[in-house]
Amino acid sequence: MINKDELLKKAQKPAQDALRLHPFYQGKIEVDLKASVRSYDDFSIWYSPGVAAPCKEIAENPEAVYKHTNKGNFVAVVSDGTRVLGLGDIGAEASMPVMEGKALLFKYLGGVDAFPICVDTKDPDKLIEFVKMLQPSFGGINLEDIAQPKCFYILERLRKECRIPVWHDDQQGTATVTLAGLINALRCAGKELKDVSIAFIGAGAANVCISNLVFFAGADPAKCFVVDSKGILHRNQADELREKGYLQKAELAARTNAEGRTGGMAEAIKGADVVIALSQSGPDVIKGEWIKTMNDKAIVFACANPIPEIWPWEAKEAGAYIVATGRSDFPNQVNNSICFPGIFRGVLDVQASTITDEMCVTAAQTIADLGVEIGLTPDNLLPTMDNVEVFVRQAVEVGLKAIELGIAKKKYTREELRAKVEKSIYRARNVTQLLMDNDFIPAPPAE
Amino acid sequence: MINKDELLKKAQKPAQDALRLHPFYQGKIEVDLKASVRSYDDFSIWYSPGVAAPCKEIAENPEAVYKHTNKGNFVAVVSDGTRVLGLGDIGAEASMPVMEGKALLFKYLGGVDAFPICVDTKDPDKLIEFVKMLQPSFGGINLEDIAQPKCFYILERLRKECRIPVWHDDQQGTATVTLAGLINALRCAGKELKDVSIAFIGAGAANVCISNLVFFAGADPAKCFVVDSKGILHRNQADELREKGYLQKAELAARTNAEGRTGGMAEAIKGADVVIALSQSGPDVIKGEWIKTMNDKAIVFACANPIPEIWPWEAKEAGAYIVATGRSDFPNQVNNSICFPGIFRGVLDVQASTITDEMCVTAAQTIADLGVEIGLTPDNLLPTMDNVEVFVRQAVEVGLKAIELGIAKKKYTREELRAKVEKSIYRARNVTQLLMDNDFIPAPPAE
Repeated sequence: MINKDELLKKAQKPAQDALRLHPFYQGKIEVDLKASVRSYDDFSIWYSPGVAAPCKEIAENPEAVYKHTNKGNFVAVVSDGTRVLGLGDIGAEASMPVMEGKALLFKYLGGVDAFPICVDTKDPDKLIEFVKMLQPSFGGINLEDIAQPKCFYILERLRKECRIPVWHDDQQGTATVTLAGLINALRCAGKELKDVSIAFIGAGAANVCISNLVFFAGADPAKCFVVDSKGILHRNQADELREKGYLQKAELAARTNAEGRTGGMAEAIKGADVVIALSQSGPDVIKGEWIKTMNDKAIVFACANPIPEIWPWEAKEAGAYIVATGRSDFPNQVNNSICFPGIFRGVLDVQASTITDEMCVTAAQTIADLGVEIGLTPDNLLPTMDNVEVFVRQAVEVGLKAIELGIAKKKYTREELRAKVEKSIYRARNVTQLLMDNDFIPAPPAE
Repeated sequence: MINKDELLKKAQKPAQDALRLHPFYQGKIEVDLKASVRSYDDFSIWYSPGVAAPCKEIAENPEAVYKHTNKGNFVAVVSDGTRVLGLGDIGAEASMPVMEGKALLFKYLGGVDAFPICVDTKDPDKLIEFVKMLQPSFGGINLEDIAQPKCFYILERLRKECRIPVWHDDQQGTATVTLAGLINALRCAGKELKDVSIAFIGAGAANVCISNLVFFAGADPAKCFVVDSKGILHRNQADELREKGYLQKAELAARTNAEGRTGGMAEAIKGADVVIALSQSGPDVIKGEWIKTMNDKAIVFACANPIPEIWPWEAKEAGAYIVATGRSDFPNQVNNSICFPGIFRGVLDVQASTITDEMCVTAAQTIADLGVEIGLTPDNLLPTMDNVEVFVRQAVEVGLKAIELGIAKKKYTREELRAKVEKSIYRARNVTQLLMDNDFIPAPPAE
């Protein structure tokens, strides 16, 4: 059995490697040419004077920008640096390594040309205006690491006011992958989503969005509980929360906890089928004795980073049937990285105007179904990132869903879309491999 | 002799190719990985949890962002689409092909990772605020195709208020390369910059900046004339121009034309040693009979696009000793593309805080000196874009100048800087070639 010291030591290794290897590469992405330069004469095609012709066509028909440029595959990874990882408000410059890393994942896993844009403002309205001004260059926006509650307001306004899809990965990405895990956990436990009682521990951006998506997918809010730092949300709080500007929490207070239960985590967890915790780094935030009070075949998602709210072995000893965490060194990692690259691939390929909750549910179901296909067990709920198929299938299913919903500008058959998706995703991996094989991406130096 | 019909036909070829090949490539740049992915475990270094360590270091010391990310090689190519090429205010989306093309030139010629950002506003103050908010992600800003007079105001404020270098290529780039051409034209003619009379035809963004840089480099404004659409600028106009907000033109009116000459182009050109025209597409904007009235060994820069203000053969017939244009199909092309990639390479490599006029003069002198080295004649004033050395040397000399001026954060010897510069520039070309050789950049289809 792993103990805390060993775990902490193991957990320090990536940080040590990161401090050593970030300066070695001095950046994780770069800009490369996508068009050929046979000779310097080609510059008269790619730049003045030839380039004026595509410009004129776009001036007459703005949609032609998708045909003549890479806009349709450009995604801005936008952060104001106010809630970076578990580090809090460390500022825009300090969020650059994360946003560059996100761009690396976007490209390698989804074939998406993402660019990190860390914005020098903390004012939500200025950030909204900034993102709206970015629209001509990008096919989509990925918001990242923005503090709550402003992140809800920012996402809501941008989804309404932008003509390109806007996604907040800490909300929608986390919700999608958690729902995928939940679907398969319930399959293992032989329970139905509509019947279960879920205790949501923590009411931050992630859990607010997770609970909404889980309800949208069919869970009954009346049977569920949301616990924030002050206790179980209760309908009596709804008005006060609304007045204070916590609109999302107010709505949860009104919809959940039909029985009007009071108390804290212990009371919410009692009798629950599922715990979904995204609260604060553990261990011992959730106690084993509380897990013992859960229903049969208890499912525990303890997803705080870097340490889960309860160690998986403790939860298991206390009777949990399934335990999932945010970490790669335990079974059942719940990690956004298996969803956002595939979802964006599909969204961009069909030129969807937005990313709806239906599309998130489709992505979650696709991930879960692939989990079944590769062999579902309580310790193997979900496919992992090294499964290319998880990205390809999500892209195809999400794209087809957007077409079905009537929000896609491009229409493809399943076969056509799959071919297009595969081309982008495999190309990104193969280009990376080629650059590595030829030392343009050198091997990291020995320690 | 080439006639107008042949020229126009030839001039249409790049446009035809551009309309055919832009949709084939669907974008001229992409984002690629710069760091290695040996296995999926590396994601724990490039992203959570390892990435938190560099983030924390940057939070403590913002300068460390240059060490841990590619910020130091990222340049935003920013336009509001209000004066795109000769096409005018065609909007941000329609400017994307130009900005993407600029990013292609930045990478291929200078090894700079430039990204096109076409901004959805025409309000200069909003654009200024937008660019300031971009600063955490970028090592420099290249403004492009912004209408005058707001472009002067935007550049001036951004140079003052930004902590990273800001460049407006239509002003400073054009001025630098024109000065380079002028230096060598005067060498051919055996004249000194301080002695010559120059007639600047056109008082748009380019010529305002060109005249200022030429005066800064040693020409005597008192002997020179600037002609706008209403005639020769005269000191009596200075107050009125200032009141109307044309500050730059007001200053030119006050400094030039010491004798108080009146009239238009014909009068300004009479007796001049040099004509520098960036006014409106020709031909016949400048008449041969006016060229006949110039001083001996007359130098004519007729740089309007797509057609020069006077056909080169007409200017020569009228007695011009040297003629330069903006076109690649005549001798002596005066083209920004031979300067901005090298200047930015040097500026980024030494982390200069700004790009001063001294640095522009250094770049111009370096280009001109290389022209002498490869063989200066009246029909071969300047090196062309296929000369890698022109970019390498500018980068080195501009970088060293920034160090000398005390505005560089990094100090290098000439040899160290040259090695660094060469590595970036050759790498970009070699990566492109590798991608072409392996069909990741496919060959363009036959017509």
